[in-house]
Amino acid sequence: VKKLVIFGVGLIGGSVALALKQKANAPVCVGVGRNQANLDQALSLSIIDQATTDIASALSGADMVLLAAPVAQTSAILEKIKPHLNSKTIITDAGSTKSDVLATAKTVLGAQAKQFIGGHPIAGSEKTGANAAITDLYQGKHVVLTPTAENSVEDIEKVRHLWVACGANVIEMSAANHDSIFASVSHLPHLLAFALVDDLASRDNAAELFQFAASGFRDFTRIAGSSPEMWRDITMANKYFLIKEINNFQNKLNVIKEILTNNSNHDLEALFKRASNARNDWANSKAKK
Amino acid sequence: VKKLVIFGVGLIGGSVALALKQKANAPVCVGVGRNQANLDQALSLSIIDQATTDIASALSGADMVLLAAPVAQTSAILEKIKPHLNSKTIITDAGSTKSDVLATAKTVLGAQAKQFIGGHPIAGSEKTGANAAITDLYQGKHVVLTPTAENSVEDIEKVRHLWVACGANVIEMSAANHDSIFASVSHLPHLLAFALVDDLASRDNAAELFQFAASGFRDFTRIAGSSPEMWRDITMANKYFLIKEINNFQNKLNVIKEILTNNSNHDLEALFKRASNARNDWANSKAKK
Repeated sequence: VKKLVIFGVGLIGGSVALALKQKANAPVCVGVGRNQANLDQALSLSIIDQATTDIASALSGADMVLLAAPVAQTSAILEKIKPHLNSKTIITDAGSTKSDVLATAKTVLGAQAKQFIGGHPIAGSEKTGANAAITDLYQGKHVVLTPTAENSVEDIEKVRHLWVACGANVIEMSAANHDSIFASVSHLPHLLAFALVDDLASRDNAAELFQFAASGFRDFTRIAGSSPEMWRDITMANKYFLIKEINNFQNKLNVIKEILTNNSNHDLEALFKRASNARNDWANSKAKK
Repeated sequence: VKKLVIFGVGLIGGSVALALKQKANAPVCVGVGRNQANLDQALSLSIIDQATTDIASALSGADMVLLAAPVAQTSAILEKIKPHLNSKTIITDAGSTKSDVLATAKTVLGAQAKQFIGGHPIAGSEKTGANAAITDLYQGKHVVLTPTAENSVEDIEKVRHLWVACGANVIEMSAANHDSIFASVSHLPHLLAFALVDDLASRDNAAELFQFAASGFRDFTRIAGSSPEMWRDITMANKYFLIKEINNFQNKLNVIKEILTNNSNHDLEALFKRASNARNDWANSKAKK
């Protein structure tokens, strides 16, 4: 990759550019965005080499385009790219859901959707904007690619190399498998946290309830402080798998209610033990890395 | 209070003794426990002034007894105390649920249950044992007392003073109100975290799921790493209010499923915004203290 065009030079896109800069034969990184102040800052921080709002010049001679803007903009950005997209340029993205993004690419790009390879770096931070970008954001992190049968092996390899150059561990799977996995380990927990806090906040004794909320509540609900707009988009984009997860979780709660009703102390302790062991094993395995 | 008997000289009981030691006219603290090594350690750390396994001598001349052992032992401890309990000694506890403890006190102590005043310090740590005890564990923390109409005003005042001397902010409410509040802000979140982790861990693709779990999952599930035995007891003790909370939460999830099914983007964002604002306002108000 000699010329990389990044739509959205924030934490995600900016950190890709910074990581690539550390490498020999780093590509020329061209930033495109709607926020001129953010682009100017990315230039002054030497995150990107060029900034432009002119899509035609940005796309000219580009080997790869990385969509790192909010996912709600994917369709609009692809519409703008399409008239200037030659047959060689690879497009990839960094969105948290993949089935919907691939469907959008198909709708907008038609036959050229074969040049689009979905991606999802599992890395982030509370911070946003070019100012938050860091060189090692992807170091040791997972990046999931969701290629289709239409993508060429060479194109997939190039996108894989981009992320490997950023220090990431790249894994390929289907978009459906990706969305199913993230519905359970990320989107459902976020939804549960938002649901609990909204429910408590809507009660007559909300102030009293929050007064007695302590450190367990603090950690459990931290993700309920996440961006409402971003999580609206992720939740709606992945609603098929998320509704399945919600139904499954409600069934689990039914099982627990039965355990409580039957005073099945042993079953309850067994459930808590399995959960506690699994949680602590997971945390220990993460800590070793 | 001149003589305070502490059953269970661990984090909770030991920290009370340490806090009182900082004060003028500190009471003589007598530790009672089943674990002799822990009692010896508490003595050698000068947390308590005396240690004994002889309940009669411990209770002799005691102004107050603090039950700080695991709540499952409450009934057995009260049975041992009863033969040696004069009409002046106040008993209080530090358990996470209150209706069940008051019922146990009534059952075991009969008419002398009027000398029992339920308490719940909202403070803790992952650590346990006398070694974990610290002087300022209760500094600025809430302690809930759940007196009944049978308790004397003087006795309630003495228990209040004990906790104020530890630096705590003491609040009185009914046992039912206490248990209802903690069902929603503490016991339900713990149950949801245990339920989610156990459910994921039981799936065929558990290893793959945990591989992609990230920082949001880490914080959301931290409390699923809590003690299974302790949470079995709390959950069973408070199951009346907890089942109400589970039913309520399942209804909330039904509302969210309907929002998703109807593609009500606006309603979903509004819910997430309310939650996000409430969570961040709460965190900011805590940070100011």
